[in-house]
Amino acid sequence: MGAIAAGIAMFGAAIGGGIGDAIVIAKMLEGMTRQPELSGELRSNMFIGVGLVEAMPIIAFVVALLVMSK
Amino acid sequence: MGAIAAGIAMFGAAIGGGIGDAIVIAKMLEGMTRQPELSGELRSNMFIGVGLVEAMPIIAFVVALLVMSK
Amino acid sequence: MGAIAAGIAMFGAAIGGGIGDAIVIAKMLEGMTRQPELSGELRSNMFIGVGLVEAMPIIAFVVALLVMSK
Amino acid sequence: MGAIAAGIAMFGAAIGGGIGDAIVIAKMLEGMTRQPELSGELRSNMFIGVGLVEAMPIIAFVVALLVMSK
Amino acid sequence: MGAIAAGIAMFGAAIGGGIGDAIVIAKMLEGMTRQPELSGELRSNMFIGVGLVEAMPIIAFVVALLVMSK
Amino acid sequence: MGAIAAGIAMFGAAIGGGIGDAIVIAKMLEGMTRQPELSGELRSNMFIGVGLVEAMPIIAFVVALLVMSK
Amino acid sequence: MGAIAAGIAMFGAAIGGGIGDAIVIAKMLEGMTRQPELSGELRSNMFIGVGLVEAMPIIAFVVALLVMSK
Amino acid sequence: MGAIAAGIAMFGAAIGGGIGDAIVIAKMLEGMTRQPELSGELRSNMFIGVGLVEAMPIIAFVVALLVMSK
Amino acid sequence: MGAIAAGIAMFGAAIGGGIGDAIVIAKMLEGMTRQPELSGELRSNMFIGVGLVEAMPIIAFVVALLVMSK
Amino acid sequence: MGAIAAGIAMFGAAIGGGIGDAIVIAKMLEGMTRQPELSGELRSNMFIGVGLVEAMPIIAFVVALLVMSK
Amino acid sequence: MGAIAAGIAMFGAAIGGGIGDAIVIAKMLEGMTRQPELSGELRSNMFIGVGLVEAMPIIAFVVALLVMSK
Amino acid sequence: MGAIAAGIAMFGAAIGGGIGDAIVIAKMLEGMTRQPELSGELRSNMFIGVGLVEAMPIIAFVVALLVMSK
Amino acid sequence: MGAIAAGIAMFGAAIGGGIGDAIVIAKMLEGMTRQPELSGELRSNMFIGVGLVEAMPIIAFVVALLVMSK
Amino acid sequence: MGAIAAGIAMFGAAIGGGIGDAIVIAKMLEGMTRQPELSGELRSNMFIGVGLVEAMPIIAFVVALLVMSK
Repeated sequence: MGAIAAGIAMFGAAIGGGIGDAIVIAKMLEGMTRQPELSGELRSNMFIGVGLVEAMPIIAFVVALLVMSK
Repeated sequence: MGAIAAGIAMFGAAIGGGIGDAIVIAKMLEGMTRQPELSGELRSNMFIGVGLVEAMPIIAFVVALLVMSK
Repeated sequence: MGAIAAGIAMFGAAIGGGIGDAIVIAKMLEGMTRQPELSGELRSNMFIGVGLVEAMPIIAFVVALLVMSK
Repeated sequence: MGAIAAGIAMFGAAIGGGIGDAIVIAKMLEGMTRQPELSGELRSNMFIGVGLVEAMPIIAFVVALLVMSK
Repeated sequence: MGAIAAGIAMFGAAIGGGIGDAIVIAKMLEGMTRQPELSGELRSNMFIGVGLVEAMPIIAFVVALLVMSK
Repeated sequence: MGAIAAGIAMFGAAIGGGIGDAIVIAKMLEGMTRQPELSGELRSNMFIGVGLVEAMPIIAFVVALLVMSK
Repeated sequence: MGAIAAGIAMFGAAIGGGIGDAIVIAKMLEGMTRQPELSGELRSNMFIGVGLVEAMPIIAFVVALLVMSK
Repeated sequence: MGAIAAGIAMFGAAIGGGIGDAIVIAKMLEGMTRQPELSGELRSNMFIGVGLVEAMPIIAFVVALLVMSK
Repeated sequence: MGAIAAGIAMFGAAIGGGIGDAIVIAKMLEGMTRQPELSGELRSNMFIGVGLVEAMPIIAFVVALLVMSK
Repeated sequence: MGAIAAGIAMFGAAIGGGIGDAIVIAKMLEGMTRQPELSGELRSNMFIGVGLVEAMPIIAFVVALLVMSK
Repeated sequence: MGAIAAGIAMFGAAIGGGIGDAIVIAKMLEGMTRQPELSGELRSNMFIGVGLVEAMPIIAFVVALLVMSK
Repeated sequence: MGAIAAGIAMFGAAIGGGIGDAIVIAKMLEGMTRQPELSGELRSNMFIGVGLVEAMPIIAFVVALLVMSK
Repeated sequence: MGAIAAGIAMFGAAIGGGIGDAIVIAKMLEGMTRQPELSGELRSNMFIGVGLVEAMPIIAFVVALLVMSK
Repeated sequence: MGAIAAGIAMFGAAIGGGIGDAIVIAKMLEGMTRQPELSGELRSNMFIGVGLVEAMPIIAFVVALLVMSK
């Protein structure tokens, strides 16, 4: 049963992390197109944002590792 | 059964946390593009916001740890 | 069975709390971008709002704790 | 079976309460941004609204308590 | 089986009541922002509306009580 | 089995009645904001509308009572 | 099994009837706000419309009664 | 098994008929608001339309009657 | 098993036929409101369209009759 | 099992054919309203289009006939 | 089991082919309404497009034939 | 079990390929309507695009063939 | 069980790859219509993009091959 | 059970990675069309973004490899 649980958790992590990051990065590219001179600032803020978005999926990955062998 | 429960809880946490954070950070990047001079204030408010958004997913992670061994 | 119930309840809590908070905070950042001088008032109202949004997810967490050992 | 029922009920309560409150509070912040002088009135009406929105989720919580031990 | 039935009924009641009330109250706050002088009339009509919206969820709560012990 | 059937029927009734009423009342509040002088007429028509919307959910409630003890 | 079938049929009837009527009545209130002088005609046409919308849900109710005791 | 089949068929009939009719009648009320002088023609065309929309749900009702006793 | 199959097929037929016809007829009423002088042509084309839309649901009905007794 | 398979295949055929045809015919009526002089050409192209749309649902019908007796 | 597999595959083929073709043909009718002089070119390109869209559903049909007798 | 797996894989292939191709070809017809002189270039790029879109569905078809006899 | 797992993985790969590629290529055709002189650059960037989009579906294909014989 | 878990995890990875990358790359092509002179910068930022988006799907792939043989 632990394997299935790990699969469900990583399913959520992959979707939450992938789509979540994509929303943030797409917004950054949009902002960069409108105001090219803000390019550096938007990118550094994007890195912070991606780090925060990935917090939960990575915890889900940890849980997946923990339940895997049960 | 506890492993499956942990998997379901982390599934919600990863999606709720990932997409929720992404909505907040995307709004911050949008605001930063429109008014670059508000950059610092928007970022500090975003940190508060991300902290609040992640409150529930982290509690879900705690519950996942608790039910894991049952 | 209690573990599964706790997992389902926290699934709802993480999504309801995460997405709900994100909607409120995104609106605050949008308002702050339009009228920077209202920054303080919007933030204090946002804190009240987040507290109200999280009321139900936290009760769900309490229920999850109660049913966990059944 | 009662534990599962409590979990399902709180799942609905957390989503209904969390997203419902978020819709109301987001509208209040939007209104406050457009007309800052209505700030007090909008907030007091928002409190009434949140109270009404949370009526049903709280009843769902009561039912969850009742069915929990069955 | 009655407990599950009560859980399903309250699930619908919490979502129907919570989101339904939120739609009505959000519209009231929007109207109040546009025409502050109609504030009192909109609120009294909102109370009637919320009462009508909650009619069915409350009946669902009654049914949940009835089926709970079966 | 009758209890589950009653739960499913009330689930539909609570959502159909709650969201359906909310759509009608939100439209009334919107109309009232645009033309305050039509306030009385809109409210009386809304009462007729809510009565018609609730016809089916109430029949669903009757069916729920009938199947409850089977 | 008949009870479950009746529950499923009334589930559809409550949603189809409730949301369907709501769409029609919301359109009537919108039309009444735009052209108050058409108020009577719109209401009488709405009654015809609601009668037609409710035709199928009521037949579903009849079927629910027929299958209930099987 | 026939009872469940009848329930599923009437579920589709109630939703297809109810929402389908509602779409047609809402369009009629909208057209009537824009051009009140076309009121009679729109209504007579609406009756034809509703008849055509209800063709399939009524056949579904016939099938529900046929399978009910199996 | 044939009864369930007939129910599933008629479920699709009622939704496909009902919503499909509704889309076509709503478009006809919209066109008739904009250009009343095209009323006859739009109606005759609508009849052709409805006939084509209902082709597949009616074949589904035939299949439902065929599988019903298996 | 073949009966269920036929039901599933016709479910898809009825929805794919019904909604697909409706999209094409609604577009034709819209185009006919904008440019009445193209009426004949649009109709003949619509017939080609409907034929192409219905290709797959009809093949699904053939498969339904083939699997029906298994 | 092969019959069910064929049913699932044709379900996807009917929806993918029907809705996919409808999107292409609706776009062609829209383009033909805007620029009637491109009528021939749009139609010939539409035929190529429909052929490409139907490639996968037809392969799904082949697979359905292959698994049918297993 | 292999037959069901092939059915699921072709279900995804038919929808992914059909709807994916339709999105690309609809965009091509839209571009061709706006700038008829780009007709040849758009069509040749569309062929490349369709080839790339169909890469994965065709691999899914290969997998379906492989698992079919298991 | 491995065959079913391969089917589920290829289901995701076909949809993720097909729809994902279609989004990228549709954007390229749109950009090419607006600025025909960027045609070459957009196409070469599209090839890079399609390669990146297909990275994960191809890994899913590899996993499908690995689990197929289990 | 491990094979199914790997299939579920790769299902999420393929969709999260494919659609997520597609959102980012589509935004890049849109920005490139509006401001061709930012072409290089947008592409290099897109590579960073795609790398971040694919972080979670690749971890899901690792988990799929780990649970595969259980």
